[in-house]
Parts: sequence; structure tokens; C-alpha cells
Amino acid sequence: MHFTSEQRLDDGSIEREFTLGAIPGTLWTPTSSPAPLILLGHPGGLPTMSPRLAGRARRFAADGFAAATIELAGSGDRPRSADAEQARADLHRALAAGEPVDEIVDRLVLPLVEEAVPEWQTTLDALLSLPDISGPVGYSGGVIGIGIRLALVEPRIAAAGLFAGSFVPRAMLDEARRIKIPLHVLLQWDDEGNDRQLALDLFDAFGSQEKTLHANMGGHTGVPQFAGDDAARFFVRHLS
Amino acid sequence: MHFTSEQRLDDGSIEREFTLGAIPGTLWTPTSSPAPLILLGHPGGLPTMSPRLAGRARRFAADGFAAATIELAGSGDRPRSADAEQARADLHRALAAGEPVDEIVDRLVLPLVEEAVPEWQTTLDALLSLPDISGPVGYSGGVIGIGIRLALVEPRIAAAGLFAGSFVPRAMLDEARRIKIPLHVLLQWDDEGNDRQLALDLFDAFGSQEKTLHANMGGHTGVPQFAGDDAARFFVRHLS
Repeated sequence: MHFTSEQRLDDGSIEREFTLGAIPGTLWTPTSSPAPLILLGHPGGLPTMSPRLAGRARRFAADGFAAATIELAGSGDRPRSADAEQARADLHRALAAGEPVDEIVDRLVLPLVEEAVPEWQTTLDALLSLPDISGPVGYSGGVIGIGIRLALVEPRIAAAGLFAGSFVPRAMLDEARRIKIPLHVLLQWDDEGNDRQLALDLFDAFGSQEKTLHANMGGHTGVPQFAGDDAARFFVRHLS
Repeated sequence: MHFTSEQRLDDGSIEREFTLGAIPGTLWTPTSSPAPLILLGHPGGLPTMSPRLAGRARRFAADGFAAATIELAGSGDRPRSADAEQARADLHRALAAGEPVDEIVDRLVLPLVEEAVPEWQTTLDALLSLPDISGPVGYSGGVIGIGIRLALVEPRIAAAGLFAGSFVPRAMLDEARRIKIPLHVLLQWDDEGNDRQLALDLFDAFGSQEKTLHANMGGHTGVPQFAGDDAARFFVRHLS
């Protein structure tokens, strides 16, 4: 892990960009140290997603959490995958035409999950070796499949906040059934790009004894501020 | 409104039993005065429900809210209605036999709503004339129809927290569509006595621009403490 920039933010927390091999990422650490860590998942494209991710990191820093994110394979400044680009184009075309997307979602998401989850785990190894980061670890991000797989296979992740706003391969419902850690699931009820029934089926499938669904209005990007506060309190309950 | 008993609780708040005409009720006031008011709905039977209602009142008092409840017509120490008793017995029999209940729910709930809503409004008149109670007013209780009707017709109610754990006449979905005040809806996901799909349809129907659904595990009476805290914060946002 190689830090390439460092700046102190107005709330006293520190934002550091890093590379881990070929993977770019960002780490935010609060004023208190060592801090429990929340991994911030996102749909890919750090240069575009950065302001929203920094906002989420700042919200978590207020409760004493560090936060970190990495670029998704094939997104942002990372080399493109021809198969993934083709699948993305097919998905947009199928959605516009109102055609079924299950096969395309499998073709897009399953390889991404296979690639991204080990990268997150390597990142976690590196982050937990830093003196200002401690366990336990939370994951906060889209349900795009990566969150499901990480919550299932990575024992250092103690709690996950999942945003039910992405396409999930139906084959992953079975993985969802085997998850046991506490889950906090956000659903934008009238999300124009989300299949509400699939999100409800997924919530129903999760095997966790503590799972909470928070559904709000406001469209895909309109998560109300109080919903972010609720998610932060979920992590305070489970990671503090 | 005639107060029949008064006691100071260990948190400093005051619990007073009252009668309003033939209707018994309870008022809890916090140490700060005048306090915004939350009406506590319940499925009937104050003598049995009192401990749970007092617990909810105590939680709200911690945020500076007064709380009040009245006995439901035909329940507790109030005269029974032969029609309602018959409908209740029919409902239990139909549920045990796995038969459809829509017609029975209509026969049980619609007359209750017609009777209870004006009683709540008269109670509200009396409570708001007390020096230690101020507006705005919230309603917190079951979705048994009374909450829907009150949220729709009583302009002094500024926000409602509804527990989606009761039978709702399908005809009231249309009333739900016309509600405009902020709503916080609690759903126990695996509630043994609740139709989950109807609860989701009802949430979808509500016309409010701000509506939030919180679904948790734990069965009908197993609402987690953090869900109560979330509901309290909803009222702090809208009534404080």
C-alpha cells in the first residue's frame, strides 16, 4: 500500500489516496485513533463517485469510523474488460427495450464479484496493518453482489449496510440465505433503476437474525439525510 | 376531562388516569412543559396494554413529548358491542381455518374506525386545552384503520408512526392514498398475525411525500429497541 496524497479536511479527519498494486483507493481516518473501519462499496468510477463517497466517509468519521474505498476492476482509470463493456452495453440496451436482463446481469456481475472480492480482502489486509486502523470492520455499499459475497466469505466483516439499488444475479439469493452477520438494508422505494420486488425477495432471503430494511422515497440518488444517520447508528451499534 | 389518579414516575414524568365522558384514558407528561403530544393508538384493552403503552410513553418522554391514550370502544372496561364480538370470533375462526378474512375485517374494523376517530378528536380537544400540552400532535399506533383515518381527517396531526401489524380493510387503501403528512411505518417482517404483502401494498399506497418503512425481525411483539429509537427520532424531526 503506497500513499500518493494526503490532506487534512475541515472536520479534522485525514483523506489519503493510495495505490495497492494497480488498484487506486482512498482512505479517510478520523481524529480518534485507532478507528474501526468501514469499507465503502460503489458501482465503479472513483473519479465520478468521489464526492459522494467522501460525504459518506465524513458522516462515518463523525462517529469515529475510518472509511476506505478502492476502484472497481474495469472502471475509472483501471483497464477496461471487453466482456464487461459488452455486458454493460447489452444491459442498457435491454433495459431501454424493456427486455429481460437476468442473463446479462449474470454475465456482468458474477465475474466482477469474482475479481473484486479478493481485491477487497487484500485491501483489508493492508488497511488492518496500519497503526490507525483497528477492527471490527463494516461494509457499506451497493448490493451489486460484491457486498453479499464479502458479507458471506470475509469473517473480519462484522456488519454490513447494503444499498438495494443494483442488479443482483438471482443465483446469489442462495449466498444471501447463508449470511449470518447483522444487516442494514436501504431501499429507495421508487428507485427508477431498481427492481423493487427483487430487492424485497433479497431482503427476505438474508439468513441474518438481525436484519433491518429501511425504505424511503426520493428516487435512486435521493436517500434522505436521516436515512444516512440511521445507517451510521447501525454501525455504531455493531462496530463501536 | 376528569383526572382520577396521578403519580410521579421515576423519570420525573407524571402519569394521570382520566375519564372523558364514559371513556377512560391515560396521560403522561414529561418534566418540560408545555410539551408536544403523541397520541398512542392500541388494539383495545387498556388494562392489558397499559405496561407496553407506558413503556412507549416513557420513551417519548425522554425526548420531551407528552403522550396520551384512550380505551377503544367495546374493549377493556367499556360496554361490549355484540356485532364487534361476533366479528372478532368470526375472525379468529377464519384465521384458524385458513379462510379469507376480508369481509370479516371490514365488518370488524370499519365500525370501530367510525366510532373511535371522533372519540380521539374529542380527546384531542380536551388535551390541547390543558396548559402543559401544546401542538403539534403526532399519532403512534397500529394501522388498524384508525391511524389511517385520523392521519387523513385530523389536521392537528402533523406526523404519524404506524405499526403495520393489524388488519386493514382494503377499502381504506384509497384513504391511504390521500394522506399527505409524514409517515414512519414499522413492519415486523415475520409477524405471524400480519399479511406482509398487504402491509407493503399499504405502504406503497400512502400518498405522503415523506414516508419511511422500517422492517425488522422478531415477530409481532419483538420490535427491537433500536426500532423504537428510530420512531422517536422521526417524531423529534417533525414535532419538536
